Amino acid sequence: MERKKVVVIGGGTGSFTVLRGLKNYPLDITAVVTMFDSGGSSGVLRDEFGILPPGDARRCLVALSDGEKEEMLRNLFNYRFNNNGSSLHGHSFGNLFLAALTNIVGNEAQAIKEAGNILNIKGQVLPVSLGKSQLCAELETGEIIEGETHIDIPKHEGSLKIRKVFLKPDVSIYPETEKAIKLADIIIIAPGDLYTSIIPNILVKGVAEALQKSPAKIIYVLNLITKWGETHGFVGSDFAREVLSYISLSRFHSIIYNTHPVPAKLLEAYAAEKKYPVLIDDKLKDYAETLIPADVFSDDDPYLRHDSDKLAAVLANI
Amino acid sequence: MERKKVVVIGGGTGSFTVLRGLKNYPLDITAVVTMFDSGGSSGVLRDEFGILPPGDARRCLVALSDGEKEEMLRNLFNYRFNNNGSSLHGHSFGNLFLAALTNIVGNEAQAIKEAGNILNIKGQVLPVSLGKSQLCAELETGEIIEGETHIDIPKHEGSLKIRKVFLKPDVSIYPETEKAIKLADIIIIAPGDLYTSIIPNILVKGVAEALQKSPAKIIYVLNLITKWGETHGFVGSDFAREVLSYISLSRFHSIIYNTHPVPAKLLEAYAAEKKYPVLIDDKLKDYAETLIPADVFSDDDPYLRHDSDKLAAVLANI
Repeated sequence: MERKKVVVIGGGTGSFTVLRGLKNYPLDITAVVTMFDSGGSSGVLRDEFGILPPGDARRCLVALSDGEKEEMLRNLFNYRFNNNGSSLHGHSFGNLFLAALTNIVGNEAQAIKEAGNILNIKGQVLPVSLGKSQLCAELETGEIIEGETHIDIPKHEGSLKIRKVFLKPDVSIYPETEKAIKLADIIIIAPGDLYTSIIPNILVKGVAEALQKSPAKIIYVLNLITKWGETHGFVGSDFAREVLSYISLSRFHSIIYNTHPVPAKLLEAYAAEKKYPVLIDDKLKDYAETLIPADVFSDDDPYLRHDSDKLAAVLANI
Repeated sequence: MERKKVVVIGGGTGSFTVLRGLKNYPLDITAVVTMFDSGGSSGVLRDEFGILPPGDARRCLVALSDGEKEEMLRNLFNYRFNNNGSSLHGHSFGNLFLAALTNIVGNEAQAIKEAGNILNIKGQVLPVSLGKSQLCAELETGEIIEGETHIDIPKHEGSLKIRKVFLKPDVSIYPETEKAIKLADIIIIAPGDLYTSIIPNILVKGVAEALQKSPAKIIYVLNLITKWGETHGFVGSDFAREVLSYISLSRFHSIIYNTHPVPAKLLEAYAAEKKYPVLIDDKLKDYAETLIPADVFSDDDPYLRHDSDKLAAVLANI
């Protein structure tokens, strides 16, 4: 039997969580990520080597690696040479890995592919675009914020709503990514920072069109928490509506939302960062053919996070 | 049927050639290498991070990697960040890889093991010792040369013979390496620079004893060429005698030497570097129970080198 083709669109911790659960199922997995981040070691590499920031690709490579190797690879990829005075100070190893491969094979997509081969990952990781671009946000006040890192770590008043995000300049979809979306059986929009991880994928020219035309079931995994400076005050339907409006679709095939109660002691810690659990409102049902309430919460985690295995089990049932 | 246990002792190109041929056979392979080199990126890493120079381990990891990945891994591991002005200038990626792992797991042997896991290599790579030491040579004039790189790239008059090499300070065999030698069915002394790649392994306290006690057949693959500053003027029996004297053995189980004629146009190029084909003299037979003359020469190579596949086929026959 041919394996189902699953495309996971996102970035950050959300994609990581989805992928590391899904890899245990007999699926043909493609992770699609942006390369628009502008902070930290990634930014330095971009300046020094002219390569696209590989942070999200790196995390997905680890997520799709062999279970036994995953922890070591995660430590290795996140490892930063931090000998003060050393010439290597501050670079994450994973970024160096992808930078070296990019310089050898000539482009970031091929480098990620080679990295996947070397690490024997289960599936593939594709950049949504090879174009160099900056993520920008227009706030409800009209102010424009330039650069992913400045939206992600806001200097602006964080209760302000984002009117829209856009890429400057426009960039086009990577052809293999377009093909993967068009041939997919299932497309998962991972949970993740709405305007800095998820929607940037959809902003790339050709992505919304590919999603509209794809015969795949498009499934949205709703976030667990809001984010100060991005989605403060959002309820469930706000998230779904925003993603759909950027795709120009009226509804998802299904939306998965968590039903497991949130531990009180975590609430306090998150409130200190002005992050709050996403409330499930009754408008959410307008944005999906099927709502899937499920316990997809990670109990044994010091963070408010989805559980890889629970989430994968729900997804595999669809 | 249990796989035959093969231990390959050496370093440099010779071990690389032996290993990449052997990995295609159903064998349980252990590569033993020194970590005493003192030049280049390795030296800088030792100074900055206090770790042992991983050059030979890196080459063996590549040699034992999956055939399809080998070329890419070789390019990656040998890749040096060479953006002038970059903070990464001059480091080989393979050394950074092992340096990062060493800092994560705490010692070089464990780091090499983890690297082998990550890269899915066929077999294992073991350091001969985890002790920090310098290779020294005493010339026939009595002059002492300190540091592997100064023997390897001689500043001394290269026609002078080396009276003996020794380690300063003494270091002891890594316990797993001792175990591998004692349990081996076959031990291969790879071709390689006699005093800077091969004998340094034997200088480590416990190695000669382990070799003497091992029930394994010990096979010596004779070098193809002499080396200025190291083995200038050596004939076949000189190489064999020197190795045996450091082990305190009277003879090998067998010695493999090349019978394929050397292309005239290569001779000239090598003579320019004062390197000459090793002459096979009739004393060689005194140093082995069996002499194995064989075409183990790489035809399609711009260098005078052994051919991995031919050599492995001869070895597999023993």
